Amino acid sequence: MTDSLKHQLPIFQQRNIDQLNQWLEKIEIQQQPLTEAMKYALLLGGKRARPYLVYITANMLGVSAEFADDAAAAVECIHSYSLIHDDLPAMDNDDLRRGHATCHIKFDEATAILAGDALQTLAFEILANGSLTKEAESSRIDMIRVLSKASGASGMCMGQSLDLQAEGKLVNLTSLEKIHAHKTGALMKSAIQLGALCAGEKGKEILPQLEKYADAIGLAFQVQDDILDIISDTETLGKPQGSDLELEKSTYPALLGLEGAQQKAEQLYQTAIDALNDIPYNTDAMQAFAQYVIARKN
Amino acid sequence: MTDSLKHQLPIFQQRNIDQLNQWLEKIEIQQQPLTEAMKYALLLGGKRARPYLVYITANMLGVSAEFADDAAAAVECIHSYSLIHDDLPAMDNDDLRRGHATCHIKFDEATAILAGDALQTLAFEILANGSLTKEAESSRIDMIRVLSKASGASGMCMGQSLDLQAEGKLVNLTSLEKIHAHKTGALMKSAIQLGALCAGEKGKEILPQLEKYADAIGLAFQVQDDILDIISDTETLGKPQGSDLELEKSTYPALLGLEGAQQKAEQLYQTAIDALNDIPYNTDAMQAFAQYVIARKN
Repeated sequence: MTDSLKHQLPIFQQRNIDQLNQWLEKIEIQQQPLTEAMKYALLLGGKRARPYLVYITANMLGVSAEFADDAAAAVECIHSYSLIHDDLPAMDNDDLRRGHATCHIKFDEATAILAGDALQTLAFEILANGSLTKEAESSRIDMIRVLSKASGASGMCMGQSLDLQAEGKLVNLTSLEKIHAHKTGALMKSAIQLGALCAGEKGKEILPQLEKYADAIGLAFQVQDDILDIISDTETLGKPQGSDLELEKSTYPALLGLEGAQQKAEQLYQTAIDALNDIPYNTDAMQAFAQYVIARKN
Repeated sequence: MTDSLKHQLPIFQQRNIDQLNQWLEKIEIQQQPLTEAMKYALLLGGKRARPYLVYITANMLGVSAEFADDAAAAVECIHSYSLIHDDLPAMDNDDLRRGHATCHIKFDEATAILAGDALQTLAFEILANGSLTKEAESSRIDMIRVLSKASGASGMCMGQSLDLQAEGKLVNLTSLEKIHAHKTGALMKSAIQLGALCAGEKGKEILPQLEKYADAIGLAFQVQDDILDIISDTETLGKPQGSDLELEKSTYPALLGLEGAQQKAEQLYQTAIDALNDIPYNTDAMQAFAQYVIARKN
């Protein structure tokens, strides 16, 4: 992890938690399984990479963190709801996340479904009611457009559905990229778009370059995930590198080989950096994030 | 059913289906289980009472149907998603709805969860992108505020959660009203609020009266549901009237007796009609709807 990230990330993580807490406390009926489950899922750990992307994009454009807090909170609500639903028995059936019981284990399935539903709603409630600079007020609707497109049947939900369809099949590189672009890329991109929209028109002007950057790091994030799976396997389970290949698991190393996947990550990193070169602001934090994406060990 | 309803309802039902179809066709990736499940759930029957309320409220204020189509579509997306999730095994575990297989039976649980999720997103996407009159454009954000408040932890999701908590318990009248105000009342009210906001400032001016009307008919709708349960039981199952009382089921007849519940419905009807008296527009359709709510037989 680069120095600037090491310094900034915990600060923004805490801001995000504080802001989400404020929204959760506004719910009229408290101390109910629903509100407790929402709090449990939202506040329990997480890298908070998406809020971080909102903050650094807005900051690059001169927007102070207090006017990016709500966009950051909204995107984390969507991410958090997607994890609750992905963990359900009918989906990935995971009992543990980040070392803690998943929401449906800690509470029950019905509560977990409802908590996910209500967190999705909360994301849009936050964007509709959150604090923006005067310059960004006219972009409020654009923020809702961006987040809804990224989250629904044209984005994250479709990605999860495509991923479920692909289970047990060996998909080609085009299909794999399509899955990841929808499942994880769309929401990461929306974080950057939201950060830009926090600056209003000024942000809109550089959206094309930012989206190029976002597409590249979103995919690089997934490629690195797949690489780490293999490296981690080798070290911890003693499973030989490339064994995913034999299992016909659709991962980048399975399709490209480990070295090919590492080259792919490197290329995507370069695409991201090139996109930043066309942006007339200080892109240090965004460069550092791109570096982190392909260098991270977990 | 009153004459005006008999005439108008099928027309608005068809408009709603057509409009939803248009939005569904815009989803980039088609012929996937996700899109098929969304279509199945959205287009398969339903009274479409909420879209109807949007249309008649907007129409009362001089807004033509084409500028109420999207608000009507959005509220139906929320209603439809809530039914998909309510039917899931972890919730009400229903295999049939309106005589057809429920979404998770027709497809699978994972697809049903995702289709519900994506339909919720679609509701906000529609409100953010839909067609409004020039006068209503400044109310677009208010529409998103209204629908998000009605759908999430301060509205429908909380109602469903409270209802689950109350299962097998005899709750008092205050608690029962609280459950229904959240579970079904909030979304019905939002339909009327959305219809009013389709007219911009003109609609905002009469929101207090409309909300009084909406609260009354929302609750009356539920009281009548409970009454019909009993009447229907008597006729079809030969179960004596009031047997729910012995089972300690929390319904209005259980708490007030059948006659008391009928009086309650009548009082709520009167409250609704009184609220309409303060509205300086032609409220015939809204009066007819209130009449239908307490006179309906199914």
